[in-house]
Amino acid sequence: MSATTKEAPAKATLTKPSDREIRVERIFNASRDRVWSAFTDPKLIAQWWGRGNKLVIEKMEVERGGHWRVVEHADGQTHGFEGRFREVTPQDRIVRTFEWDGMPGYPIVETAEFEDLGDGRTKLVATSLFYKTEERDGMMESGMEGGMNESYAALDRLLESME
Amino acid sequence: MSATTKEAPAKATLTKPSDREIRVERIFNASRDRVWSAFTDPKLIAQWWGRGNKLVIEKMEVERGGHWRVVEHADGQTHGFEGRFREVTPQDRIVRTFEWDGMPGYPIVETAEFEDLGDGRTKLVATSLFYKTEERDGMMESGMEGGMNESYAALDRLLESME
Repeated sequence: MSATTKEAPAKATLTKPSDREIRVERIFNASRDRVWSAFTDPKLIAQWWGRGNKLVIEKMEVERGGHWRVVEHADGQTHGFEGRFREVTPQDRIVRTFEWDGMPGYPIVETAEFEDLGDGRTKLVATSLFYKTEERDGMMESGMEGGMNESYAALDRLLESME
Repeated sequence: MSATTKEAPAKATLTKPSDREIRVERIFNASRDRVWSAFTDPKLIAQWWGRGNKLVIEKMEVERGGHWRVVEHADGQTHGFEGRFREVTPQDRIVRTFEWDGMPGYPIVETAEFEDLGDGRTKLVATSLFYKTEERDGMMESGMEGGMNESYAALDRLLESME
């Protein structure tokens, strides 16, 4: 644990800033350096993104123009996700596309911004931009919030273990 | 040439049906079957899409979920383009994403619909959907219309030679 006694909120804050976006805020009890590593190092990503499911990182080229692809193995099924990096500003900001194999050709633009709160904690602000409102609403109704909170809880545990 | 004496218009009709779309209409003097082949057979695509420039078709998996990637070689430079198929309905409709290496992470959704005009000609209606209006306008100002007309003129010549 960091020096602060503040607890990270158990849940992310999820809002709809426009009719084609989802915005998520989540505070982590770890330095920005550590959170950045957990979001960009394939070995670390594999430890939290799949919420305990086996995650195979087939590609993770964290640079502008680089491709990424991960495959989650759960309940005898595989779920592939992939995309391409639009922007990578170390410690600060990642913009990439995100596409699920189950809906090929429907990429989402994900922007992740990392803010150093100055007290050993880091605030993540993640926005997702969809082509159409119904695609955004479909994602909202898919149970993404529960899965996201599970992933972030796994990330909390990983960040604590990185001490 | 087909039996009809009608000439295909020299230019495509380009409109903006919404603030994030471009719509193109173009009539070809060839059967829908032939136009479909020219849009989906890698060997044929290589003969017109590059407007005379060398085109390497690295991947062209024309089916839902399939990936495509082509590299154009022009003036000592290479320009890569890629994306993924959202929908492939033979003879009728292709929906895919389109992304230029020079702007990674900015995919466009391209929908191509092929209409049999019943007189040996085929009408293509192609719409491009962008995430943001400024991305659409940037494409409009990039000289895409001239390049597109050159490609379609090369396609006219290919279709005629396929007789």
